[in-house]
Amino acid sequence: MRVGFVGLGTMGGAMAANVARAGFEVSAWNRTPGRATELGELGVHLVGNPAAVAAASDIVVTIVSDTPDVEAVLFGPDGVAAGAPRGSLVVDMSTISPSATRDFAARLAGQGVAMLDAPVSGGSEGARKGTLSIFVGGEAADVERARPVLAAMGTTITHVGPIGAGQAVKAVNQVILAGAYLGVAEGIVLAIKAGLDVEGVVAALSGGAAQSWVLSNRSGRMLDNDYPLGFKVALHRKDLGIALQLARETGTALPISALCEQLEAGLIGKGHGDDDVSAVARAIRELSGLEG
Amino acid sequence: MRVGFVGLGTMGGAMAANVARAGFEVSAWNRTPGRATELGELGVHLVGNPAAVAAASDIVVTIVSDTPDVEAVLFGPDGVAAGAPRGSLVVDMSTISPSATRDFAARLAGQGVAMLDAPVSGGSEGARKGTLSIFVGGEAADVERARPVLAAMGTTITHVGPIGAGQAVKAVNQVILAGAYLGVAEGIVLAIKAGLDVEGVVAALSGGAAQSWVLSNRSGRMLDNDYPLGFKVALHRKDLGIALQLARETGTALPISALCEQLEAGLIGKGHGDDDVSAVARAIRELSGLEG
Repeated sequence: MRVGFVGLGTMGGAMAANVARAGFEVSAWNRTPGRATELGELGVHLVGNPAAVAAASDIVVTIVSDTPDVEAVLFGPDGVAAGAPRGSLVVDMSTISPSATRDFAARLAGQGVAMLDAPVSGGSEGARKGTLSIFVGGEAADVERARPVLAAMGTTITHVGPIGAGQAVKAVNQVILAGAYLGVAEGIVLAIKAGLDVEGVVAALSGGAAQSWVLSNRSGRMLDNDYPLGFKVALHRKDLGIALQLARETGTALPISALCEQLEAGLIGKGHGDDDVSAVARAIRELSGLEG
Repeated sequence: MRVGFVGLGTMGGAMAANVARAGFEVSAWNRTPGRATELGELGVHLVGNPAAVAAASDIVVTIVSDTPDVEAVLFGPDGVAAGAPRGSLVVDMSTISPSATRDFAARLAGQGVAMLDAPVSGGSEGARKGTLSIFVGGEAADVERARPVLAAMGTTITHVGPIGAGQAVKAVNQVILAGAYLGVAEGIVLAIKAGLDVEGVVAALSGGAAQSWVLSNRSGRMLDNDYPLGFKVALHRKDLGIALQLARETGTALPISALCEQLEAGLIGKGHGDDDVSAVARAIRELSGLEG
């Protein structure tokens, strides 16, 4: 099977490499050509635009930054839609709007091209190791068609519903994380300000109802006030923007997620957008006069 | 060793029963006499006031509702302080203010009586089964003196620092839970409103960074909009009030905890104070027009 990649950033580059290593014939395009050179050694064929990728592929993976970027690589000049043969399949693995996803799928269907949305969780480390969690929305037959390619990138591939459902599940994930990160951040900052032995507190609480992946894996960064990646604050803020838009469209009130998105916007404004998302603790620390 | 209990509510009654079953000689008093009758079969000796409990005990456990209740049973007429012999030990297992705890300990020390704060986590089920987590603040020698009694009530007994530190750790626990419960509540309500298969979403997300005790154990109640105990909304609201007061005393900003406390106050006003704390999802559901 011939697989195309549109987008070779930190995520897409690592994912394309894993697909090439799994034995698929891979062609690819990236907006910034320099980032793609190391893929040549794995036999990835670099072409001039997304239309050329699509013309050479049975399945085209798009993985770019945000909703307008997906629209541009699909429907812009020399976009995927201009080159994709009838019967081919587009798998968008970016994290974008669920309703825009449904619109894009309808437009592709008009020319006989199927689409899945398949956003991922697991960060740059998961992309490199091929251990991503992938939430897939679309027709079951298309999911089965894409499964061998997805299996080269992730270990947990869940078909969660019709087109757009993958993006909605990803939004739910980011909303749950907003509460988890902020709750642990407030707890750790209160523990510091109350003069407690923070590591002892984390150990004492980890056996009970406060137990979480965030408490176990990110409270140490909050204590040290040092936030290596991980998953960038700027990307979580972007994803919460998608979740808040989905909330508006569905009539849902998300007060914690909205507050988290605004605290993250402040962190980005202060130059902390490339920190790990556990840096929301930095916002709570600064509100509490615990700097540096 | 002779152990006294002041407070035989849902928690204290179950804990006193476990201490009696472990072979200690137990005397007890409760404000409402009727609730204590079943303890008689376990050999618990019921006396007329807290002073009489203290006079008959080496260690007196107090477990009542809030800071003023502890002050009343310790220092009110016929209180513990009026009967406690020099060299005895008071172990307050209520959840109350850390700074009031330090004040009470200083007043008891003036008459040669030691004090520990030892609030618990694990709810009524943990109290019945003797599987509570106990966070202990005070002198190490006093903790060792109390340990055999505490071991009859809980499975995890952690000495977390000086007097008041147990209460501060409990406050941190409740703050972390505020974020965890609200994050999951927002995620579940968004999933419902977006038309997703909620149980499938929970399964898909439980392997990643969103994993938590709350997601695994309480998202089903949020989906069903039915909140059996558990741990009462009214008690979590009271405990967040203590955490927010500790935050004021230490100059800490806890925006999520403050929002959670207010949502819970609204739930209590609507008659939902006896629901499990996962009922914060009811507040998010109602804000989003998902009633009943």
